[in-house]
Amino acid sequence: MKKILIANRGEIALRIMRSASEMGIKTVAVFSEADRNALHVRYADEAICIGPPASSQSYLLGDKIIDACKATGAEGIHPGYGFLSENAAFARKVKDAGLILIGPSPEAMEIMGNKLSAKAAALKYNIPMVPGTEEAITDIPLAQARALEIGFPILIKAAAGGGGKGMRIVEKAEDFIEQMDLAVSEATSAFGDGSVFIERYVSSPRHIEIQVLGDNHGNIVHLFERDCSIQRRHQKVVEEAPSSVLSPELRNKMGQSAVDAARSCNYTGAGTVEFILDENLDFFFLEMNTRLQVEHPVTEMITGIDLVKEQIRVARGEKLSFTQDDLIINGHSIEVRVYAEDPANNFLPDIGNLQTYITPKGPGVRVDDGFEQGMDIPIYYDPMIAKLITHGKDRQEAIERMIRAIDEYTITGIQTTLGFGKYVMQHPAFISGDFDTHFVSKYFSPDDLKSSDEEEAMIAAVIAAKFMKNDSPSALLENSTESTSAWKKHRKEY
Amino acid sequence: MKKILIANRGEIALRIMRSASEMGIKTVAVFSEADRNALHVRYADEAICIGPPASSQSYLLGDKIIDACKATGAEGIHPGYGFLSENAAFARKVKDAGLILIGPSPEAMEIMGNKLSAKAAALKYNIPMVPGTEEAITDIPLAQARALEIGFPILIKAAAGGGGKGMRIVEKAEDFIEQMDLAVSEATSAFGDGSVFIERYVSSPRHIEIQVLGDNHGNIVHLFERDCSIQRRHQKVVEEAPSSVLSPELRNKMGQSAVDAARSCNYTGAGTVEFILDENLDFFFLEMNTRLQVEHPVTEMITGIDLVKEQIRVARGEKLSFTQDDLIINGHSIEVRVYAEDPANNFLPDIGNLQTYITPKGPGVRVDDGFEQGMDIPIYYDPMIAKLITHGKDRQEAIERMIRAIDEYTITGIQTTLGFGKYVMQHPAFISGDFDTHFVSKYFSPDDLKSSDEEEAMIAAVIAAKFMKNDSPSALLENSTESTSAWKKHRKEY
Repeated sequence: MKKILIANRGEIALRIMRSASEMGIKTVAVFSEADRNALHVRYADEAICIGPPASSQSYLLGDKIIDACKATGAEGIHPGYGFLSENAAFARKVKDAGLILIGPSPEAMEIMGNKLSAKAAALKYNIPMVPGTEEAITDIPLAQARALEIGFPILIKAAAGGGGKGMRIVEKAEDFIEQMDLAVSEATSAFGDGSVFIERYVSSPRHIEIQVLGDNHGNIVHLFERDCSIQRRHQKVVEEAPSSVLSPELRNKMGQSAVDAARSCNYTGAGTVEFILDENLDFFFLEMNTRLQVEHPVTEMITGIDLVKEQIRVARGEKLSFTQDDLIINGHSIEVRVYAEDPANNFLPDIGNLQTYITPKGPGVRVDDGFEQGMDIPIYYDPMIAKLITHGKDRQEAIERMIRAIDEYTITGIQTTLGFGKYVMQHPAFISGDFDTHFVSKYFSPDDLKSSDEEEAMIAAVIAAKFMKNDSPSALLENSTESTSAWKKHRKEY
Repeated sequence: MKKILIANRGEIALRIMRSASEMGIKTVAVFSEADRNALHVRYADEAICIGPPASSQSYLLGDKIIDACKATGAEGIHPGYGFLSENAAFARKVKDAGLILIGPSPEAMEIMGNKLSAKAAALKYNIPMVPGTEEAITDIPLAQARALEIGFPILIKAAAGGGGKGMRIVEKAEDFIEQMDLAVSEATSAFGDGSVFIERYVSSPRHIEIQVLGDNHGNIVHLFERDCSIQRRHQKVVEEAPSSVLSPELRNKMGQSAVDAARSCNYTGAGTVEFILDENLDFFFLEMNTRLQVEHPVTEMITGIDLVKEQIRVARGEKLSFTQDDLIINGHSIEVRVYAEDPANNFLPDIGNLQTYITPKGPGVRVDDGFEQGMDIPIYYDPMIAKLITHGKDRQEAIERMIRAIDEYTITGIQTTLGFGKYVMQHPAFISGDFDTHFVSKYFSPDDLKSSDEEEAMIAAVIAAKFMKNDSPSALLENSTESTSAWKKHRKEY
């Protein structure tokens, strides 16, 4: 492959192009009319407009993307994450067009894209499952009988759901029938498929996922875990590698289960096997994501492996250049997702213009983003501005570095999740490693950010008063010593 | 130490403040009138103007800096590199004022600050020396006798010189007396000290230096080598770690010699022992730099150790938290110094305004700089804009990443050494690892950069013609596919 098309936008499109560029591979960007001036368009060697802003009229149009490949002579397509990345029908069309999809086979996508077939595949390898129904059901009396066997609390989830959609927790047996009834009808209207699973509800879960990588020669390795337990609205917002709760033995065991899950669908390329870990450190298979994850950089930081390059190498038919034994964990890495959202207002999107946009630098800091100062965050897509990643020799250094990097990160014009990220880094539960996926609902209140805002506003007022007394900022600097950090002044804006 | 003063400016002041910030230590910046709006001033918690632009009236005024500590309550001073960093008299004053210098003892600075005493100290530990006079001499007939014993070519160098100043190569015996005569009188007028060393001239040398770290409890370790053989005008411009020519055995041997050199002066903190390596892989002691080096980041990248934090810990009296056996080399790292210099014009400084200034990002890229878009490069100081550092799993990836990062780096308004850095990365001698300190004079001609400029100008003309045909750039994007990268267009500017 001498030229590839990146069927995505934003930070992930740029990130893929950077690896391609290092490999000497030319890149083709596709873009919607809303992204005409986007960085991924400027970065690419070639660029094609594929339609209006709405994803359904641009980034989700597989045929247009295949046409763009043919027009430019691109031999492969990297789908990134989201959009068409887990669409088996698209993967098949790409193959039929004589092109290479940089991702797993359509068959692997199909098996893991459906909860039922995914579970069936994983069961063949004795991968632990949360106790529950082995098959999706719609029969309410049958479901009730199984629920009583499993024991409460019980989780009901739609077979066709995802990202927290179509999920219900039932605390007591007497509520079951009513909740089951609602779940089935909700799933029917939302997904056109009313079948649900019922299973034991793990009340204090950690979200632990394992990165795997397979080639077309039967080799599959895992690249250790990522702990993605800090979530808001069932979506990850802080991730780290390694997890602070896994022993080397548990890591090996979960890694082996993940490799087995990949083997169950003849997985090739980069994939992620998601597990739930309970209070007793028992782990259960959740699902497999058949694409590059948003949070893949923390794995890159601790392993030194460029996952995008590995994806491309595998797609070219190369054997993995390392074995499981070659892989070691080097230090600790944390990612904070920087969303254009207002944490003080239930994390609602806060779209607008990046009036100031200064990214942090220095040792152990990586920023994967797709914007620069003065750009607008478009309303049409996911409101993620950037991923802020730090690496340190241990977890403490990674945390201290993240706080320092967040303090340096200067964004004005919109609200972001940076202040929330700092709140997490400074929270005793996070620092101690003793937290679960309920971190936000358990500990976070919008007031936690407001109070620090007010404090900084007060400090700013004191400084302003001094400035006036001295007539000019430079007089102040000249005469004495003062807290004059522009970074610190901007920090109030978060 | 809860607060430290950074007696420096630019990228190194910022870099030190970042580590201090991660350790929860407050920072005080000092600045000259030329640096009023500099980033290190904005980054610090407090800032004090210490005088007019000239270093001799600001950054070199030790007393003013000590006063600034007292006024702000800073308990320690980090001198960075350059300026007062190797000034033993200043180190002594700091100590006498009851403050802590984050650096070695004045005694260690004195021993290593003079070539004669440095050599004498190193000889006690049997550290290999280039065959030559053990003591500096001024006697010409005596020098001639020794030169004949050592064999030609011979290097004459001033005892009080440095950075290539006061050095002469004598190829043949019949030229010796004339050259020696000139060297002595030159050294007398330049340094007030006419004494010189004469030694064997290594005609194809590598510059290999070893990073050491010592505490106040007798522990000294080395953090492997840096290869700094790519130099222009006797100044380093590209550095890497590890070196492509050291075997593990040679690395251990040189590391042990460096630790011995540090022990010979009871060295504490971070220091660097410089060696010359000849064609037969025999190494000889050159000198010890008693401070943090400009190129320290490549060592940080391969070891995961934050050298500035270690300096601060040692200055606080802490024991080193790791032993020699804990240290391993992880991957490969390269640094390209980005100078405001014109490589096409004998690397003469090209001071001016940073009209465009966009730094590269993504995996394995670190930029240590002290500027942002729109700032001027002041004429008063070293014209270094930034240090561009890459890390990869091996040397090839570090090189590919450097080329990619240089391509992303967008600077207009001044000439820089970025294009020269790319030239080095793409040169067969550098790629193969077969090069010495004469790389620039052997291979580089200003035309090497011009031709690529012309090529890019031609490409730009073709694109411009296409734009005109289509009436507007967007029409072009809309209709077909084109090389529209702003980064690439900017690249012509280098």
